Amino acid sequence: MSDKITPARLNRRIVLARRPEGDASPEDLRLEEVPVPPLADGQFLVRNLYLSLDPYMRGRMDDSRSYAKPVALNEVMGGGTVGEVVESRHAGFAVGERVQGPLGWQQLSVTDGTGVQKLASSKVPLTAWLGVVGMPGVTAWYGLNRILEPKPGQTVCVSAASGAVGSVVGQLAKAAGCRVVGIAGGERKCRLVTGDYGFDACVDYKAGRLEEDLKAATPDGVDMLFENVGGAIMDAVLGRMNPFGRVAVCGLIAGYNGHDISIKRVRSILVNRLKIQGFIVSDQLDIWPRALQELGERVVNGSLRYSETIAQGLEKAPEAFISLLAGGNLGKQLVKLD
Amino acid sequence: MSDKITPARLNRRIVLARRPEGDASPEDLRLEEVPVPPLADGQFLVRNLYLSLDPYMRGRMDDSRSYAKPVALNEVMGGGTVGEVVESRHAGFAVGERVQGPLGWQQLSVTDGTGVQKLASSKVPLTAWLGVVGMPGVTAWYGLNRILEPKPGQTVCVSAASGAVGSVVGQLAKAAGCRVVGIAGGERKCRLVTGDYGFDACVDYKAGRLEEDLKAATPDGVDMLFENVGGAIMDAVLGRMNPFGRVAVCGLIAGYNGHDISIKRVRSILVNRLKIQGFIVSDQLDIWPRALQELGERVVNGSLRYSETIAQGLEKAPEAFISLLAGGNLGKQLVKLD
Repeated sequence: MSDKITPARLNRRIVLARRPEGDASPEDLRLEEVPVPPLADGQFLVRNLYLSLDPYMRGRMDDSRSYAKPVALNEVMGGGTVGEVVESRHAGFAVGERVQGPLGWQQLSVTDGTGVQKLASSKVPLTAWLGVVGMPGVTAWYGLNRILEPKPGQTVCVSAASGAVGSVVGQLAKAAGCRVVGIAGGERKCRLVTGDYGFDACVDYKAGRLEEDLKAATPDGVDMLFENVGGAIMDAVLGRMNPFGRVAVCGLIAGYNGHDISIKRVRSILVNRLKIQGFIVSDQLDIWPRALQELGERVVNGSLRYSETIAQGLEKAPEAFISLLAGGNLGKQLVKLD
Repeated sequence: MSDKITPARLNRRIVLARRPEGDASPEDLRLEEVPVPPLADGQFLVRNLYLSLDPYMRGRMDDSRSYAKPVALNEVMGGGTVGEVVESRHAGFAVGERVQGPLGWQQLSVTDGTGVQKLASSKVPLTAWLGVVGMPGVTAWYGLNRILEPKPGQTVCVSAASGAVGSVVGQLAKAAGCRVVGIAGGERKCRLVTGDYGFDACVDYKAGRLEEDLKAATPDGVDMLFENVGGAIMDAVLGRMNPFGRVAVCGLIAGYNGHDISIKRVRSILVNRLKIQGFIVSDQLDIWPRALQELGERVVNGSLRYSETIAQGLEKAPEAFISLLAGGNLGKQLVKLD
């Protein structure tokens, strides 16, 4: 008999240390090192290469009624990753295969494969599976095509226009023949929006003339709003809506830290017969294959552009996440884990 | 040759004397007596018997961008009436016929027939053509059937539940198998709502426990909201909405005198994937015949009840209108003109 004891492999992960009061802070999260449990039959181990950081994660840090269960205290923060299978006792996943899935803020994940998919095409860059050809891209595709229903010549307004979702909305709307106006914070983001992404105009809400600048950028009013922010930005666009306008509510990042996001221009809903619809892309599983195929083709043929901000190392994730909530990132926010 | 001069027939009418600042007041309106112009070919003269007073009229007193042109200063206030043709130079309308149409706050109207219809059935009481089998009834029918899309067993909440629109919404929703909860101001209105109209419950918002009482009345949450009021009432119901809830925005009477009607529970739109849609029944001309037929049949067979508050005489219209805006009426507010 052998006495050999394999030293446990160690996993580095970030857990929820406490629930934020108002703005999230680095102390709400804790980096820890824990042993990786041995695999059971039907499980496999993934070494995560990139972690996606997304605004929705802020909501899961709270203990309030929402569409997703809150993260439990002292549990690993949830999040999407791309990675590589490094050990397997699962018939469907072999060592060396690359996968994406909801594997959390950690370097190593033991999983039974729930929600995990193999990467379908090697032509699509690895990180794009977390952004433009992943959840943010499908979110943009669904909200634009199924809620806003773009018509050529109409005007689409997109808030958080330089972000992972907004940038895709704008490019798809341009391809559908719309006039596209972005709203973003700062000159640098606005240059990205009109330069790289080809929006017709971009309003810098940090310039302090939101209402006037929006009016100048939308001479024919707004027929569709893809809303990621809420609050004063949403209210400003409600004041520009045309009759029979549509609003897709995808996110309310202005309120994620507990700030007021009241709508004051409620009268516009009635006067302009608006349709305002909230949505969550995980409700719409049936459209994912079609959306991912179109998005992947557009990335490969160059008609869909994207940009990324990549933090280096798991220990940088909390800071990068808090910066994301404050609008400090440019494009899709990722963390390189290895 | 005859020298006989027929003395001009005199018309009494109410015109917009000035635009209200905040709450409308009697001084914003003026009663005047003017000669009736002679009929041209293609015109006829209607003696109006009843005038309908409706909250939307407050919006037309302002000079702001809306779905309908504002009433011009010193022009007759617009409004629906039922009346009788007393002179005619129009091939389609004969003396003695009863009609309804947008003939304004006046006793005598010269018209070319635009928007005027003959009353289709003598079984429907005359005043019902201005309420339950008129614009308010069709408004209720459209918002419920085409926007809320009621499903048996689901809960519908209706604000201004004792009013001309709300009372029809609730009765049609009960007929569709829904649980129906009204919101109204005062015990007397709430008794009408649960007693005469058969709602399952009614919350008296004037009792000062709106949130608690609404919670108690909607143990399974709210799937559909038919909103006539806005402001704190709408916000309270948004806090009770179930996933995939629908909201039909029919009126925002809380804001018609310039008061704040902000929505604070914007997060519910996203979390519960709500659809909120404003509508105006005059956009939907195609559904009027079908709706009027069903409403008329229900009135005649007794399955649709209604109540009326009738002011006596045109000179009482301003006071009755201001009382309507403050919720002082019970059921449909009319003015008997003759």
